[in-house]
Amino acid sequence: MSLLTLGTVAFDTIETPFGKADRIIGGAGTYIAWAASHFHKDLQLLSVIGEDFPAEELAALEARGVNLDGLEKREGEKSFFWAGRYHMNMNARDTLATELNVLENYSPKLPEGYKNPEYLLLGNFAPAVQMQVLEQLEKRPKLVAMDTMNFWMDIAMEELKAVLKQVDILIINDEEARQLSGEYSLVKAARVIREMGPKYLVIKKGEHGALLFHGESTFFVPALPLEEVFDPTGAGDSFAGGFMGYLAQEDDHSLESMKRALVYGSVVASFCVEAFGPNRLKEIDEAALDARKKAFQNLMEVKL
Amino acid sequence: MSLLTLGTVAFDTIETPFGKADRIIGGAGTYIAWAASHFHKDLQLLSVIGEDFPAEELAALEARGVNLDGLEKREGEKSFFWAGRYHMNMNARDTLATELNVLENYSPKLPEGYKNPEYLLLGNFAPAVQMQVLEQLEKRPKLVAMDTMNFWMDIAMEELKAVLKQVDILIINDEEARQLSGEYSLVKAARVIREMGPKYLVIKKGEHGALLFHGESTFFVPALPLEEVFDPTGAGDSFAGGFMGYLAQEDDHSLESMKRALVYGSVVASFCVEAFGPNRLKEIDEAALDARKKAFQNLMEVKL
Repeated sequence: MSLLTLGTVAFDTIETPFGKADRIIGGAGTYIAWAASHFHKDLQLLSVIGEDFPAEELAALEARGVNLDGLEKREGEKSFFWAGRYHMNMNARDTLATELNVLENYSPKLPEGYKNPEYLLLGNFAPAVQMQVLEQLEKRPKLVAMDTMNFWMDIAMEELKAVLKQVDILIINDEEARQLSGEYSLVKAARVIREMGPKYLVIKKGEHGALLFHGESTFFVPALPLEEVFDPTGAGDSFAGGFMGYLAQEDDHSLESMKRALVYGSVVASFCVEAFGPNRLKEIDEAALDARKKAFQNLMEVKL
Repeated sequence: MSLLTLGTVAFDTIETPFGKADRIIGGAGTYIAWAASHFHKDLQLLSVIGEDFPAEELAALEARGVNLDGLEKREGEKSFFWAGRYHMNMNARDTLATELNVLENYSPKLPEGYKNPEYLLLGNFAPAVQMQVLEQLEKRPKLVAMDTMNFWMDIAMEELKAVLKQVDILIINDEEARQLSGEYSLVKAARVIREMGPKYLVIKKGEHGALLFHGESTFFVPALPLEEVFDPTGAGDSFAGGFMGYLAQEDDHSLESMKRALVYGSVVASFCVEAFGPNRLKEIDEAALDARKKAFQNLMEVKL
């Protein structure tokens, strides 16, 4: 079951209370691909990079089974760059710099092999770009998920609402859910947002876990309490990648399967934050994932 | 199995973004007693009030099975009074007024029938007062739990540490855990605090749920996402009351029983916040508790 994802492949400079990492590999597409690759092998990555992006990083993704036919490389241009600083409370951060570079006029062209994905994850991108992907599909995927952010709500709300009408699952954080809905209560926000289109809504609360809303059901998965959260960058994307990677692998998007996917997304996100960039996602193996799955079971299981 | 609790019985004035309630019934002891009474009937309340406290409130507690032999009533004096204002984020609040009144020189005297409780919950109080209760016991209870707050860490840390050495469970919130331990990470904080005495540590995170640490085990219970949190006052005390009420009723303080108790504490706290003061705790019946227990099951259950 092919899983197509749209997401940035980029450089990040990150400051946390524990250290600084300069121009490391980042981008939502990078995190999603690495995270999903732990569950599923039929992955396609739609994105754009400049001539500055290291060939060995691309080779590593391909070695994981990620198809890069849809990764446009622009000679003479630079990759997207973001710099940010996290507070002691790692749920909050300030953006220090954003250089769009290749993203400035990006208009994705889907290769032939990308036009019939069974599963689609539209990572955080301009809603107009997300829409261009949907418009090039030859048939509707079994499941379409998307991420977005406050920035697009500020400057492109109408385009965002048009995309929302076409997706099954929206995956956003609590502050984004509040801004999108105009409601402070997440229960009320979930109702308003699901009237905009998505039948499923996942609200990420960072270190406080994530909620899944569908119909009358609400499901919650905690984040694993960790000794140290080293760098939260990419945790939300890793979560989304693990979530969709699991669903694509199972080829089952029932509510019960989605609950499990939420746990697996949290499992992989719990590794992501243990090191700068996607480094931990590259290291971990099946045994590590399995041990952490058991940690989540111990954290959540109770016989009432 | 008798459950003895020490806790204030008081008046509160509360402002939230949704309204204001003037001089309503409050106090940790009040919330604990009402919450515990939904699980257990052999309750004893150790506290002090002034002549201004309404007789009908005491009669209502007695009708619930709460023994008030240890409730000292001081003629010519006034009950403890607290006033506070909650922010839009109901996890944060400012104290507007604190009038100690009868608490100023309170030194609890345990009636004969209070000296052999099987279960003891020391609500938030000056550590010296908590110690006076422990010193009057004729034998060690099966389980001793306590609450405390930042204020006592600021002005009475040594007395607090002496009490901590004698308790089995400490129930505090995340900010208190950070201050007590000097560690930001709750995993590290839990390790430091358990070296101070308590074998079990419960860290309450308000709307973000609660964690139980014991040995190598960590268990998490979410808070129920609600349409509206009307007034968070007393939620933590209701949680502690429900938790200890369930354990006393079951007379089982194994780890598995404690996990269930954590859920029942959350169940009763989820009602507490739906109205000003302890009003919802007085209204709810077994059917309401049962329905909400099912809501927690739906929120938490997943087959991995």
